[in-house]
Amino acid sequence: MINQDAIVALATPSGSGAIAVIRISGTDAIGIGNSVFKSVKGKDLTKQKSHTLHLGHITDGILTLDEALVSVFKGPNSYTGEDTIEISCHGSTYIQQQIIQLLLRKGCRMAQPGEFTLRAFLNGKLDLSQAEAVADLIASDNEASHQIAMKQMRGGFSNEIAQLRQELLNFASLIELELDFAEEDVEFADRTQFHELLNRIEFVLKRLIDSFAVGNVIKNGIPVAIVGEPNVGKSTLLNALLNEERAIVSDIAGTTRDTIEDELVINGIGFRFIDTAGIRETEDVVESIGIRKTFEKMEMAQVVLYLINNEQLIINNELDAVKIEIEKIKNQFPLKPLIVIGNKADKLSQSQIETVKTEIPQILMISAKQNIGIENLKNQLISFVDTGALRNNETIVTNSRHYDSLIKALEEIQKVQYGLQTNLSSDLMAIDIREALYHFGSITGEVTNDELLGNIFANFCIGK
Amino acid sequence: MINQDAIVALATPSGSGAIAVIRISGTDAIGIGNSVFKSVKGKDLTKQKSHTLHLGHITDGILTLDEALVSVFKGPNSYTGEDTIEISCHGSTYIQQQIIQLLLRKGCRMAQPGEFTLRAFLNGKLDLSQAEAVADLIASDNEASHQIAMKQMRGGFSNEIAQLRQELLNFASLIELELDFAEEDVEFADRTQFHELLNRIEFVLKRLIDSFAVGNVIKNGIPVAIVGEPNVGKSTLLNALLNEERAIVSDIAGTTRDTIEDELVINGIGFRFIDTAGIRETEDVVESIGIRKTFEKMEMAQVVLYLINNEQLIINNELDAVKIEIEKIKNQFPLKPLIVIGNKADKLSQSQIETVKTEIPQILMISAKQNIGIENLKNQLISFVDTGALRNNETIVTNSRHYDSLIKALEEIQKVQYGLQTNLSSDLMAIDIREALYHFGSITGEVTNDELLGNIFANFCIGK
Repeated sequence: MINQDAIVALATPSGSGAIAVIRISGTDAIGIGNSVFKSVKGKDLTKQKSHTLHLGHITDGILTLDEALVSVFKGPNSYTGEDTIEISCHGSTYIQQQIIQLLLRKGCRMAQPGEFTLRAFLNGKLDLSQAEAVADLIASDNEASHQIAMKQMRGGFSNEIAQLRQELLNFASLIELELDFAEEDVEFADRTQFHELLNRIEFVLKRLIDSFAVGNVIKNGIPVAIVGEPNVGKSTLLNALLNEERAIVSDIAGTTRDTIEDELVINGIGFRFIDTAGIRETEDVVESIGIRKTFEKMEMAQVVLYLINNEQLIINNELDAVKIEIEKIKNQFPLKPLIVIGNKADKLSQSQIETVKTEIPQILMISAKQNIGIENLKNQLISFVDTGALRNNETIVTNSRHYDSLIKALEEIQKVQYGLQTNLSSDLMAIDIREALYHFGSITGEVTNDELLGNIFANFCIGK
Repeated sequence: MINQDAIVALATPSGSGAIAVIRISGTDAIGIGNSVFKSVKGKDLTKQKSHTLHLGHITDGILTLDEALVSVFKGPNSYTGEDTIEISCHGSTYIQQQIIQLLLRKGCRMAQPGEFTLRAFLNGKLDLSQAEAVADLIASDNEASHQIAMKQMRGGFSNEIAQLRQELLNFASLIELELDFAEEDVEFADRTQFHELLNRIEFVLKRLIDSFAVGNVIKNGIPVAIVGEPNVGKSTLLNALLNEERAIVSDIAGTTRDTIEDELVINGIGFRFIDTAGIRETEDVVESIGIRKTFEKMEMAQVVLYLINNEQLIINNELDAVKIEIEKIKNQFPLKPLIVIGNKADKLSQSQIETVKTEIPQILMISAKQNIGIENLKNQLISFVDTGALRNNETIVTNSRHYDSLIKALEEIQKVQYGLQTNLSSDLMAIDIREALYHFGSITGEVTNDELLGNIFANFCIGK
């Protein structure tokens, strides 16, 4: 069933650079690579060892397209498990196109998104959750999401699932064996041990399901609503928060970062800042629509920052208005963490600061411009993320497909537990166990179908 | 004098992709690479053969940053001539940054733009004109500029220069030998042979200098002014011209082309289209400024396309106005190739077409929409480019630095020729010959200085 025709794709990011890598995989990959390659030492690529590099020219027979280094990988010792060629050529888009066109003429076809990784999965080089981790790894842009994806790609998650599945499978076999001896009313499966196993599985499943809450925010960033008028110093604050990270990035010329405005990483965790207007009472209808929108945005956020310009606060004598606003937010979202930040604290006298603090005890005084209080704020933001699982190196579920399968597996396990308590007959219990096994298997890909694979790999980039 | 400290840079285009390649070069490159690499087979990179690939993990000692393939190249058999490591990692910008930061902590420093190629030059892996061709190759976006850069990178141009230089150097030695025997009035250098050599050199230099005209347009694209009102079908025409090329590009998903509006490649030659307004006489002052600008743009162009909407021509009875415009262009630029194009020819009856052709005999009838006459137009455009040198696989000079050196070398050679005719003393002639040799040497880098190298390599991308 596995397609082994030679597929080709650009593996490096599109655009111009020093070098680009074009990858070919399939039964004929090395032969096709050899047909366009003229080694400087007269080597025949089909006769080279795996994991070797060869300098030469890519040629269509008449024109030399480029000088290139060619890597030879022999299946099964390659990413896909098939024979693979990687052509490391000069990084002009023109050359990339010319070489890919030449390879298409020589019998390759363009790879589908994720097709290299799909083949790796089909050839047993990695399981489905590991394959999914490859895409997560490439998409990860901070330490936490990167580490979770790395762990998953290296099989941490799969092993945990596979072990539970194996133990459950053993019991399933024993229980199904009982069916063959149904007349004799024997019990091959020790009910006490089985009960313990089910409890253990339930415990692990619940922990994994719970981890999705933190896994999801780590993967997608934690939404933080900033309530604040346009002139309170929001962008100065974001810059101050971003300062350290940006410094690291700009140290490395040649690597660019796709900056998404208002998205930043603090201590390896991604935060997405959502800008909102203030929510002061007003007669204006347009304004009140604004207020409703502000509340909608706060609804979506996990944390609310309420940013005040201390200087304005004192000059305009707005202490009471601010206190009313804070109460309003608290009433609306009693359980949502709220950080009240007083910016431009450096503009106040000590007695003014005391006045504000007396009125708004929870206020965090900062000066974004002077970089005062920023570390405190970072610590507060980070404190809302339960990084316990991360610190303890526990498996964290970040993938909603896995989450769904875990929920379904848990439902089935609970059915089996109930069946065990109520002395359900072995044949009915066996059905529930099989269902649970099915959901375990769908995570790692032991159970799969074309549609599922299509959905998963369609989200990959071409070349991976 | 050669710096051999370990330099590191991202070699692949910046951004996200399936894989990225990070390159380290220098005396300690393999040792540093080994210090962050944990081979799956427990291999020590410092003990591996050149041109081998190794699978493992990049680790900072505590955290695993990525699973990666590492290539080992031992100097002098590497691009730079030094020991080199290439880390092929997952193509997320986060991972790229993390690995580069780790390598910086381990003792690498960030490479300067072009520093890998500079080292290759300093280590004698390629000469200066070949090094410059590397940058041209990466920048080339069409067949002609690509082939010229390829030829130059492979040493075609250098060999031609080096051979002339060697012959001239032989004569210089003989003439300088005469100086040692100045009292005896001997001639070691055969004056007839020397005369022939100088003529040959002059001939080659003139050909190379002449080639710069075509080389320059091939490198930068041929400027073509399109004179035409907004509604004559200019963009339809450009699309029709671009059609074939664009189809090729879009066939290859995953490779993107940086489309520059109004720039396109015909038969492997780049054309840059400059949009201009019409130039009809008018009383309006604003309009006449427009006409002046139109003439300025035509001045810059190598070819002028005059595009007419045939349908409008007939409906508005504008034949005479058009004829006056054409005459005006011809008077202003008597030597500039002008193509008069009648678009929407499919809207005219046969007799109308005959009428137009009688009045404007040189008109090229097309229908951009129906794709009629487009091949004719392409052939006409191409006919203005002297592709003879290209077809004959002659060396074409594209680099203005080389052009300058060739001009200076020619001046010196002509001085020597004059000296030979006027029986100039050997010592004075030797000075002119040395000057000529100097200019030859500056092309290939036998003669160089830090400032020149700095200027050349500053234009490279980092990682090359």
